[in-house]
Amino acid sequence: MIAGRITIEDRLAIEDLYAAYASALDERRYDDWLALFTDDCSYRLVSRENHERGLGLALLAFESKGMLEDRIFGIRETLFHEPYYQRHLIANFIMTPDDGGFAVQANYVVIRTKFGQLSEVYNTGRSRDRIVSTPEGFRFAERVCVFDSELIPNSLIYPI
Amino acid sequence: MIAGRITIEDRLAIEDLYAAYASALDERRYDDWLALFTDDCSYRLVSRENHERGLGLALLAFESKGMLEDRIFGIRETLFHEPYYQRHLIANFIMTPDDGGFAVQANYVVIRTKFGQLSEVYNTGRSRDRIVSTPEGFRFAERVCVFDSELIPNSLIYPI
Amino acid sequence: MIAGRITIEDRLAIEDLYAAYASALDERRYDDWLALFTDDCSYRLVSRENHERGLGLALLAFESKGMLEDRIFGIRETLFHEPYYQRHLIANFIMTPDDGGFAVQANYVVIRTKFGQLSEVYNTGRSRDRIVSTPEGFRFAERVCVFDSELIPNSLIYPI
Repeated sequence: MIAGRITIEDRLAIEDLYAAYASALDERRYDDWLALFTDDCSYRLVSRENHERGLGLALLAFESKGMLEDRIFGIRETLFHEPYYQRHLIANFIMTPDDGGFAVQANYVVIRTKFGQLSEVYNTGRSRDRIVSTPEGFRFAERVCVFDSELIPNSLIYPI
Repeated sequence: MIAGRITIEDRLAIEDLYAAYASALDERRYDDWLALFTDDCSYRLVSRENHERGLGLALLAFESKGMLEDRIFGIRETLFHEPYYQRHLIANFIMTPDDGGFAVQANYVVIRTKFGQLSEVYNTGRSRDRIVSTPEGFRFAERVCVFDSELIPNSLIYPI
Repeated sequence: MIAGRITIEDRLAIEDLYAAYASALDERRYDDWLALFTDDCSYRLVSRENHERGLGLALLAFESKGMLEDRIFGIRETLFHEPYYQRHLIANFIMTPDDGGFAVQANYVVIRTKFGQLSEVYNTGRSRDRIVSTPEGFRFAERVCVFDSELIPNSLIYPI
């Protein structure tokens, strides 16, 4: 059976990790968000079409926490952009033990609200992550968001 | 770690409370919905902008169960309005013990369907509630929905 | 209290069933999806209006796993249609023991992405299912999706 060998405690703690992730990102507490990754993490945002064809092209690709920090610096200091609100809903987790950590998949939707406009579905898809246990708790060692949506790439400022 | 001191049983029972809340509201079983609040409850619906600026202005503000009952009476009997369907999805809970109860945050989206029209994202945001244990089970002592959405206030009839 | 007599293990295993359901359907692994139903299952997709009026009319109605298999064959081989992506989010479960199995309700939203178009809310509503335990794990004996949305019926190709 799916997720058969994960303990209830681990399962709920990993759900907590995703709740903390959504909260930190949506509220723009980026230092809290960064703290949820391991130092040698990777983060990729890739279209479903490329993912299913095995193509490596990604809309965003960061290969360490340092690169994530650079992106956050860019958002805060240098990227010219019109701000918008994000709101995550992440559900329907499938967690399987994998090489000392956990492979975790979940469906997600991100609702975007631009100032003065209606809220709208902005990005939806499935995350395929690798979670590891650290002395500070569970952390993202690898995060891959595979999105169904057909985005206008240069409008995507904040991580998903 | 987040939610570290809440028992699994309490955690699941509080998730049940939110499931009952969504079900009662979306199916317009308003008496069931009212029963989920304490007598001296408060309910506020406030924009993210006002919330982040510390402004007290709310789109809806009810300071007791009696005021909630008045609203329901209005919906049933006196408010002239075009009905619409609501559908809640509430996810990514963060629960922390707090002064004998629990501070519970969650992301939510409400999908609205007007008769003859497409379903659409109507209201999305984050709830910041206070839940207490009563002889009848967990109840809302305080509910605050902080919405990202920029609404047309007079179109909001039903609670979120 | 709601869901008071279901064990934590059963509750989480049923959540796993829904996660497997969403994953199989959204990724078009239809054989995996079919395996989640009992042989004498039923599946119905019905509008909220008809459901609340007690009308039997359904947009989709399958009365056995064989009929579900026929539908999948149609999708794969014979139905002329423009493909689209689906993405489920299923949340806020209410599970109650019922006659040797479980009555399970949940809110859901399905986001559709057509090629080259924006993602949009496609179908939202509440599922009212009957889950049974089998030697292979929990399975759908009956699935009823009651949708708020006002659909154009002939555009609905894939199950919800």
